[in-house]
Amino acid sequence: MAGFVAVHTGAGNCIDETKYQRVIKEACLRATEILRNGGSAVDACEAAIVRLENCGYTNAGYGSNLCMDGSVQCDAAIMDGSTLNFGACTNVSRVKNPIQLARRICDAQSSPQLLERIPPMILAGTGAEHYADEVGCSMVEPGVLISSKAKFQFNHYKSKYDLVVNSRLGKATSEESVQVPEPGNEVELAAALDTVGAVCVDGAGNTAAGCSSGGILLKVPGRVGQAATYGAGCWATDTDELAIATCTTGNGEYLMKTLLAREICHGAFSSDCAVTSLHKTFKQKFLDSPLLPRQQDLYAGALTLLYYPGQSSGEVMWSHTTQSFCVGYMATNQRVPKFVHSPLPTYSVPGRSCVVNGHNFHLRI
Amino acid sequence: MAGFVAVHTGAGNCIDETKYQRVIKEACLRATEILRNGGSAVDACEAAIVRLENCGYTNAGYGSNLCMDGSVQCDAAIMDGSTLNFGACTNVSRVKNPIQLARRICDAQSSPQLLERIPPMILAGTGAEHYADEVGCSMVEPGVLISSKAKFQFNHYKSKYDLVVNSRLGKATSEESVQVPEPGNEVELAAALDTVGAVCVDGAGNTAAGCSSGGILLKVPGRVGQAATYGAGCWATDTDELAIATCTTGNGEYLMKTLLAREICHGAFSSDCAVTSLHKTFKQKFLDSPLLPRQQDLYAGALTLLYYPGQSSGEVMWSHTTQSFCVGYMATNQRVPKFVHSPLPTYSVPGRSCVVNGHNFHLRI
Repeated sequence: MAGFVAVHTGAGNCIDETKYQRVIKEACLRATEILRNGGSAVDACEAAIVRLENCGYTNAGYGSNLCMDGSVQCDAAIMDGSTLNFGACTNVSRVKNPIQLARRICDAQSSPQLLERIPPMILAGTGAEHYADEVGCSMVEPGVLISSKAKFQFNHYKSKYDLVVNSRLGKATSEESVQVPEPGNEVELAAALDTVGAVCVDGAGNTAAGCSSGGILLKVPGRVGQAATYGAGCWATDTDELAIATCTTGNGEYLMKTLLAREICHGAFSSDCAVTSLHKTFKQKFLDSPLLPRQQDLYAGALTLLYYPGQSSGEVMWSHTTQSFCVGYMATNQRVPKFVHSPLPTYSVPGRSCVVNGHNFHLRI
Repeated sequence: MAGFVAVHTGAGNCIDETKYQRVIKEACLRATEILRNGGSAVDACEAAIVRLENCGYTNAGYGSNLCMDGSVQCDAAIMDGSTLNFGACTNVSRVKNPIQLARRICDAQSSPQLLERIPPMILAGTGAEHYADEVGCSMVEPGVLISSKAKFQFNHYKSKYDLVVNSRLGKATSEESVQVPEPGNEVELAAALDTVGAVCVDGAGNTAAGCSSGGILLKVPGRVGQAATYGAGCWATDTDELAIATCTTGNGEYLMKTLLAREICHGAFSSDCAVTSLHKTFKQKFLDSPLLPRQQDLYAGALTLLYYPGQSSGEVMWSHTTQSFCVGYMATNQRVPKFVHSPLPTYSVPGRSCVVNGHNFHLRI
């Protein structure tokens, strides 16, 4: 069977893209293998994200950023373009692959429960973990998802944070106050995004989109992020003329406020040019949105797949307002995945302007 | 100062509306008193919902429906039309008034945190409870929010549920299987909605919308409902021509899938007739939405406030696909709140058609 997959490891300020290259390619190979063997877009999307969650250097699953209290709390979501089912989990610490739980919740949407109860779309915290255990997801002890790199970064930024807090409270000794980070250094934290996502189309022309994230480093424990928010982290919709799937990354609350994934798909349905439509959505619905604060840098990235069933062809598009965006993609009729480290043009200002780029593909069966 | 408030106690199949009449009127009186004393729309909205949460016979705060495991888990959200800030909490068991926590999260949206961290929009579970405690919300032991009525209903439906489960598993004795509820009886559960909400406009012409819910009885623990979902449970947007606030009630997942509150407000901005716009949104974006299952009854209600700053006048509109909807409203220049028990017309089929009705108001200062 034919199919196409594209994955990303987060829009941000990527200094060393080589570390992502291998895992992005592996995720593409894994997903296309599933598609070739007749797996659905949802199967392939889940498998690609599982690979990205397990690698240890993305901010998803194992290796996720830690919360302010040192715990790990993961979010993930998946949407099936053919059924429009959506499933998400948030605040999970004991589920090895949060995307696997999101997928179970998504699938269960089609099966009404006893007493006419409508199946849940989003599950949080310990309730989500109990559900995961019941439906057979791999469970781990909370500490297992904490990588040594995540712990190191947590300690580094937590001590910076504590210094700033103490100095503002006037508690710092004169020696300590020398070490208070300059405003310029504070930006570093916001740039460490690394959320992952994937979009797929299978041989039947059905799409799926998924995302997984540990959230921003030092986040308030309990925070629900864009990767668990309906309309924000991923969206997929299939019609006879156009099937589209997208996943987003960036400043979580800004993606949530603008419901960016949903807007990207809606925009594409009312335009006949994917590049124009993505530019317009990023400009009108994100950078210039009245829902977002003025005078702030607004970071977002989106990986979008458009498929035209009548032509058995499609486009994969990456768009971002961040300094860089690492993506990869592969069709089942290709032997080697393509890796792209997309930079913002030098004349563009990160957080204020957007770049859109992409590639065509054709599904020959 | 002038202002207007409207509140509801859920769209459903209300057999005895008198029990809601008193608390609805009290909530209106409390909110208008705050508005008269110069309080903001957000202040008044919060206060009205606190009253509805505390009364014990709505499905919000004290008296909320219980989850499948017998626990109580509340959701609430508030949106400020002037700042477009939104705050929500989900899965909270220890916060006396979930709307109070949602309001604190909403307010904090305007204050960037240290190290350029963006303040959270939605908090869940124990993290949300720790935050609530830190910011000074009234905290209670989890059992305190469980009313004896909620416990009684839980026991009643849980034993029905267990009977159905056992009979389907073939475990029932012949004696037990006689008591298995008929399909007709199962519907009863879905009708027990009772979510609460409020919409307000203050003397400055700013609006706010809020909602609070314990979720559906016997819900899966951890389930995030529409009252905590951005775009679903409430929405408010102020412009120079029109300020609008809405809150929704009904089948949570269907309100979430369609992001109904946001759609209602968007629809109103592209129409010059509130009745037409609400009818159109309920029909096109809810009853006929490709996002919702076919062949299912789709229950929703919305309480919407439109305010035209140029004319110092507005409209309060109630719309629902349920058998009935209990609402109340009051302007600061009135002495007695108005209570409305809105029925679906006899020729209409619940869950398949919609009724829209409303009233004008004028804010004289």
